[in-house]
Amino acid sequence: MPATITHDDIADLCTGSVFLATGGGGDPYVSQILVQEALKKYGPVELTPVSAIPDDALVVAIGEVGAPTVSLEQLPTGTECLDVIDRFEAWVGRKVTHIVSFEVGGANSVIPFITSAARKIPLIDGDGMGRALPEAQMMTFAIEGVRPGPAVAVDYSGGCVYFDTQDTLLYERQVRNIAMAMGGMVFTAEHPMTAEEARRAIVPGTISFALELGRTLNANFGNARQVEAPIRALFERSDYGILKHLYTGKIVDIQRKIMGGFDVGEAVIESVGGDRGSMHLSIKNEFLVATVDDQVVASVPDLITMVDHETSSPINSERVHYGQRVTVFGIGCPPHYRSARALQVVAPRAFGFDFDFVPIEDL
Amino acid sequence: MPATITHDDIADLCTGSVFLATGGGGDPYVSQILVQEALKKYGPVELTPVSAIPDDALVVAIGEVGAPTVSLEQLPTGTECLDVIDRFEAWVGRKVTHIVSFEVGGANSVIPFITSAARKIPLIDGDGMGRALPEAQMMTFAIEGVRPGPAVAVDYSGGCVYFDTQDTLLYERQVRNIAMAMGGMVFTAEHPMTAEEARRAIVPGTISFALELGRTLNANFGNARQVEAPIRALFERSDYGILKHLYTGKIVDIQRKIMGGFDVGEAVIESVGGDRGSMHLSIKNEFLVATVDDQVVASVPDLITMVDHETSSPINSERVHYGQRVTVFGIGCPPHYRSARALQVVAPRAFGFDFDFVPIEDL
Repeated sequence: MPATITHDDIADLCTGSVFLATGGGGDPYVSQILVQEALKKYGPVELTPVSAIPDDALVVAIGEVGAPTVSLEQLPTGTECLDVIDRFEAWVGRKVTHIVSFEVGGANSVIPFITSAARKIPLIDGDGMGRALPEAQMMTFAIEGVRPGPAVAVDYSGGCVYFDTQDTLLYERQVRNIAMAMGGMVFTAEHPMTAEEARRAIVPGTISFALELGRTLNANFGNARQVEAPIRALFERSDYGILKHLYTGKIVDIQRKIMGGFDVGEAVIESVGGDRGSMHLSIKNEFLVATVDDQVVASVPDLITMVDHETSSPINSERVHYGQRVTVFGIGCPPHYRSARALQVVAPRAFGFDFDFVPIEDL
Repeated sequence: MPATITHDDIADLCTGSVFLATGGGGDPYVSQILVQEALKKYGPVELTPVSAIPDDALVVAIGEVGAPTVSLEQLPTGTECLDVIDRFEAWVGRKVTHIVSFEVGGANSVIPFITSAARKIPLIDGDGMGRALPEAQMMTFAIEGVRPGPAVAVDYSGGCVYFDTQDTLLYERQVRNIAMAMGGMVFTAEHPMTAEEARRAIVPGTISFALELGRTLNANFGNARQVEAPIRALFERSDYGILKHLYTGKIVDIQRKIMGGFDVGEAVIESVGGDRGSMHLSIKNEFLVATVDDQVVASVPDLITMVDHETSSPINSERVHYGQRVTVFGIGCPPHYRSARALQVVAPRAFGFDFDFVPIEDL
């Protein structure tokens, strides 16, 4: 039975999405308001389970590409995600039957709701990451062999570029450079999929899972000590791996700069009691590697998530600041990312770290 | 009466084009071979004078975009300039009736001959610069209000990007970033024009002028002292301004790096007799400003051209090296570039220099 998402659900969905975004995905605050207004205006959105995708489907992934910090200053109007799908359909000369999010993380998990509600195109309950990750070739779509083009990018002023590209690594270079040329952030419609490709490549159930996770976090807002048990139970019932409490402490250093269209940096957390060595978190849009006493305690593709120690609200990497008291969790990634083919593009070495991936349950 | 260009003319055309390229435009050596072979295979090309463009024409500008140094190492196969026009026609759903060169400088003045010969699309005797300049908004097409899109870029491996862009400054940012993402050099079809736009925006007669100039230079090869009088006479009969002998000396320093997709640098020339202060040439793909004793003796949009002092062969900026004995000429630009609107985008201030343009005849 499909889930129905109304404007009342969006705040919870955003909270859950920031948790799954592992620091990246972009702050969803402005998107949340845009999506709530869109669902009030156009009505609720029915989620289509991956298992219910019809054989003649044309599934297209949509979302924002750029550095999350840009989204704090350069704001969308909410029409870009309509423009991009209209232009995609006009270019390929076919109607899109279903849309799917790039990633369940941050703004990108809610922006497609605007398109779905306004254009009456069903939205799939799933995404291309089960989390957030910084580059296009890291999406399960690309890992499962889906071609990136035909793809369309529009900017906040209506500028538009079309890509007829076969290879996702080249597409990533192209779209990243275009995002930088067009002000730091673009909306894209890309990785068009047949039903067969979509069933194989989409991480299923992640949108409804993010909603349930957000409900649990918000229901326990301000009760950080009580929230761990119910969210652990949620993850245990899901396709994700185990949830580990990695660290609790205070942010004592945060460095962040925009390099090559990404937010790159490092956060340092010190234990309040001083009983453990400091935690270092390496950031490229997302939290990629967590070390304590120079020992890796979690790394991509497993999830590393930071929440406010008092409120249990998840924290985007661009919102991390000195003095915050935080708790860091590690969570096993969905099985899509544990294959050898996937690890080639999402393991620590794919980000320039000189060590192999060890699953969080073995650390 | 239209001029007919055969494979025997291409070497002369290339020589004249390097002279008009003012250091930029890319070394035409590989293009020259590709074009000679294409004209042998497909037959000669008739040049259409700007005055003969029919009222229902669709004129499209084609050429290479990138850093000239890249063209020395990453070589085209000669099919990219066919692919780009085929894709343009397929995208807009119309046949291109005429093609025109971006610039009469370097490789870009001969590459369109391949497309014209192979696809039987007439080539216009004219271009968008009357020289070479580094950026798209500096073309007379843009200055005269022609929109850059729809435009298509293909790389040497068949990768393809389409631009639906209204503004040439934004297009320049987009296509420059795409060129960098796709290996440093792309072929584009862009700035589609109606007959009315083409008649207004194209600098007329420059291809046949480059051919005549090249013939004169090659006929006097090795007689550098005798070549100045006949080329001065040629320029006097043309739409260009006066030709001035600016300097003769030896290259004593050349600095060059690739920055933001351009070749940027400076050449220093010392007088052989030591009777004058040194000449400094500022380079951004092209020779932009020439000073002697820190006094400007010529600047964009007027042409600054370097020739070998012994052979009279014109020298691309990427071919400048220590110890060459050279003569530098300055030539008044075509009248298209003397308007206030044109000077906004091609005067020295548009390149970051802190002085106003003074026409070469007043310096």
